[in-house]
Amino acid sequence: MNFEEESMKKETLEVQSEAIFRMGEFLRSRGFVEILPVIISPLTDPLNHSVYDARIPYGGGYYSLTKSMIFHKQLALREYPKIFIFSPNVRLEREDKKDSRRHLIEFVQLDLEIKDATREDILDLVEDLIIYTMKKLEEKFGDFIKATNPKFHIPKKPFERIKFLEAKEKYGNDFEMILSRERNDPFFLIDIPIEEREFYDRLSDDGKTLIDMDLIYPYGFGEGMSGGEREYEYERIIKRMKFKNMNLQDWDWYLKEVKKGLPRSAGCGIGIERFTRFILGLENIKDARLFAKLPGEIAL
Amino acid sequence: MNFEEESMKKETLEVQSEAIFRMGEFLRSRGFVEILPVIISPLTDPLNHSVYDARIPYGGGYYSLTKSMIFHKQLALREYPKIFIFSPNVRLEREDKKDSRRHLIEFVQLDLEIKDATREDILDLVEDLIIYTMKKLEEKFGDFIKATNPKFHIPKKPFERIKFLEAKEKYGNDFEMILSRERNDPFFLIDIPIEEREFYDRLSDDGKTLIDMDLIYPYGFGEGMSGGEREYEYERIIKRMKFKNMNLQDWDWYLKEVKKGLPRSAGCGIGIERFTRFILGLENIKDARLFAKLPGEIAL
Repeated sequence: MNFEEESMKKETLEVQSEAIFRMGEFLRSRGFVEILPVIISPLTDPLNHSVYDARIPYGGGYYSLTKSMIFHKQLALREYPKIFIFSPNVRLEREDKKDSRRHLIEFVQLDLEIKDATREDILDLVEDLIIYTMKKLEEKFGDFIKATNPKFHIPKKPFERIKFLEAKEKYGNDFEMILSRERNDPFFLIDIPIEEREFYDRLSDDGKTLIDMDLIYPYGFGEGMSGGEREYEYERIIKRMKFKNMNLQDWDWYLKEVKKGLPRSAGCGIGIERFTRFILGLENIKDARLFAKLPGEIAL
Repeated sequence: MNFEEESMKKETLEVQSEAIFRMGEFLRSRGFVEILPVIISPLTDPLNHSVYDARIPYGGGYYSLTKSMIFHKQLALREYPKIFIFSPNVRLEREDKKDSRRHLIEFVQLDLEIKDATREDILDLVEDLIIYTMKKLEEKFGDFIKATNPKFHIPKKPFERIKFLEAKEKYGNDFEMILSRERNDPFFLIDIPIEEREFYDRLSDDGKTLIDMDLIYPYGFGEGMSGGEREYEYERIIKRMKFKNMNLQDWDWYLKEVKKGLPRSAGCGIGIERFTRFILGLENIKDARLFAKLPGEIAL
């Protein structure tokens, strides 16, 4: 490793550390509390794509590794109305994602959820959070960031909102990457069709699209955040699970809690490594954290 | 759940969230960077007590769940001289720990490590960190904390240092809990005998005790932090592994890195749930976090 690389890694760590600090500081200033991450649970995100199973036997049952804390966020809102977690997720991706340059099998997302919030509340909050954090990073590391990533600049509110189906019609199946390459600022992709997402994002009155969103970074960096309003009523949840052909018996833990009552909420998760990659314009996600693990391999 | 309990949980969450924030703030002010947690790795802490295996097959090998990031901390010091992590650990404890009121099978430790530091540097830092955090908590939540825990008070530097073998001689095998119940302030237990600890804490010149420590909370709350200077030289590490009857072939990943060269260091890990329990005087560790998981059971 030459001096150039060593010194870059050091500053990357400093930028990432500062980003974590400023994101937490911002959310605290907006009345959030930070809760501790859940790593193992009988209940985790089913995801909308297939990954290898990650579960371990214990105590006469099984613990699954957290793929996202979506359901734990819903339950935590019973105790506090605004929560966030720096949540490590393990998703044992299949080998086809090996060369995507944007997938790690373990990563951290800043996961947040607000009781009684709408999608618009979350879009507004995420804009403020991203802009605040980028400004703080520029203040402290502006010279380094601009030397590494000449395209770095602070985006303005509101970020563009683009409807999923309209974009797909105009640009074809690869619309997300085409738009990401074309744009110079982060934008939201909204109204994602029901087939494209998990059962827990709230169905809109049109019966076809969800009240949800992705944040897409510009310059080809692609998706960096997902979220939406959530389903919280038992009958609607059952209907959505059946639409996904899910085996309801596997969801005992969840459905028992739904019956007790879930708060209405909206929220999102922002990938820390992808945010770091976007800020510094890094070629590969593996350079956006220490001990990066790519799909299909065993690494420290 | 009655109103009393609900409102307590809410404030507990606020106190814990503030503690996390202030600990990170303190360490940043001392020149540390925060790195992202490692959840799965072929390499993790062997621990000095037996727990159930937690590993998952992937990519033609196995990933183990992190029991502590000790080795990753040593490796990370190649990139940056002062690091910390809010590190989730999974330790699938055996059923005998079910009723200890101090064990969770997943918990978070604030894990830190400093290149070229001595044990005394870490003791000094931990004193400052604990006092700073307790002062900040008192400023913001003093009324709630003192109502919940009338014994709450800010300890003074330096914390008492007690030698492990001297304490054992004086009080017998249960010396740790006896001292914890007797004392009114946190104290350090130092010079822990070689049989009592993992191979990676540095052996003192006496050949029998280690240059390491535990922090013990008063009022019977027991151990809340462990750490020490570390072994970093290949020959000494091999000798220590053989002393523990470890199978060196299982340690390929580690020994390859040791051969490349590890930085000399010292560090420690501070349990967040145990710290929360101590601050608020909570009867049981399960009340010190959301989604607490006790030994021997499956819980959300």
